[in-house]
Amino acid sequence: MNRRGILVVVSGFSGVGKGTLMRCLTERYGYYALSISATTRAPRDNEEDGREYFFKTKEEFEQLIAQDRLIEYACYCGNYYGTPRDYVEDQMDQGRDVILEIELQGALKIKEKYPDALLLFVMPPDAETLARRLKDRGTETQEVIRERLRRAVEESDGVEEYDYMIINDELETSVEEVHNLIDSQHNKISRNLDFVEQIRKEIKVFAKGE
Amino acid sequence: MNRRGILVVVSGFSGVGKGTLMRCLTERYGYYALSISATTRAPRDNEEDGREYFFKTKEEFEQLIAQDRLIEYACYCGNYYGTPRDYVEDQMDQGRDVILEIELQGALKIKEKYPDALLLFVMPPDAETLARRLKDRGTETQEVIRERLRRAVEESDGVEEYDYMIINDELETSVEEVHNLIDSQHNKISRNLDFVEQIRKEIKVFAKGE
Repeated sequence: MNRRGILVVVSGFSGVGKGTLMRCLTERYGYYALSISATTRAPRDNEEDGREYFFKTKEEFEQLIAQDRLIEYACYCGNYYGTPRDYVEDQMDQGRDVILEIELQGALKIKEKYPDALLLFVMPPDAETLARRLKDRGTETQEVIRERLRRAVEESDGVEEYDYMIINDELETSVEEVHNLIDSQHNKISRNLDFVEQIRKEIKVFAKGE
Repeated sequence: MNRRGILVVVSGFSGVGKGTLMRCLTERYGYYALSISATTRAPRDNEEDGREYFFKTKEEFEQLIAQDRLIEYACYCGNYYGTPRDYVEDQMDQGRDVILEIELQGALKIKEKYPDALLLFVMPPDAETLARRLKDRGTETQEVIRERLRRAVEESDGVEEYDYMIINDELETSVEEVHNLIDSQHNKISRNLDFVEQIRKEIKVFAKGE
């Protein structure tokens, strides 16, 4: 592969199933790379360093910031979260499309630095489905669910900043839809200027030489 | 279907196979509509009114212009060619994606009037293939082939104005690629603002009511 990978930013309401969707996508198609965030928050029981997150101390994280080795970072609830630059750049250079699961503010920062990035928003088919999925997790209290829905209202204000949306109704269909969507972005003229230039030159030669 | 159709403008070098590609696409997927141009040039032996073109007299054509019933038109070699508005609008209203095969100048006029239109350029895998395809037609003299290649050089100057390109190497693959590309455009946020507004309202209700 000599085509450069695409940076794909994926956001969506809590409970919409974007984590499952992206896991299925990367499992099915070998050439996606799922970016792993760095964070200073403590690992949970079932979490592993380098799988869910790169767990860092506050000092380590601030060093990453100082060395400009994060393409975006933010502070939530007293903890840092950020996207390591090296991994993202390496994977893109290898031609792999890199997926970042990130929230609106981070998405906008990415778009500033990488105007070519593809911003995807995962939608539930309707609000009822979203509320039901949050309930079905069973682990959240009524108050937490309501809080997440209030959060979703806030997040929905930024949806127009995204390029495309996926309605996550039936998982299999959504995986194919996301794949087709990302794949088709490789056909953008702006991503193929070298090819355009090359074929222009070649045709000129044939038009003279024939 | 309540989604509105997309206007797809398809261009490409003479001999690249865009006609075959679009015919296969519309035959395979029922919901595309191939726009038929109006022209004042005389029908050839194998051409039928309403199939290849709507054949018009000069007076009829100029009446269409006067009534603003063409979304673009141009004059080549003393004959008018144009795209009838009614058919395009009707099909889009019915949710069908409408395909226009048209050249650069026409494509740019369409983009002005329909900023949402999708501009596709069909490319050969390389210049040699293009030259070979022109020769293999067998009906063209060496001089005509050279003329078409010179024309291709000129046309290639406008490629950067298009949104996406398709490399027409293997027909079956290209048909699927074009289909996926057009289909994914329906997921653009800008084409789904009503849905975004609707879900925003619904989530607000749930966030309060739960």
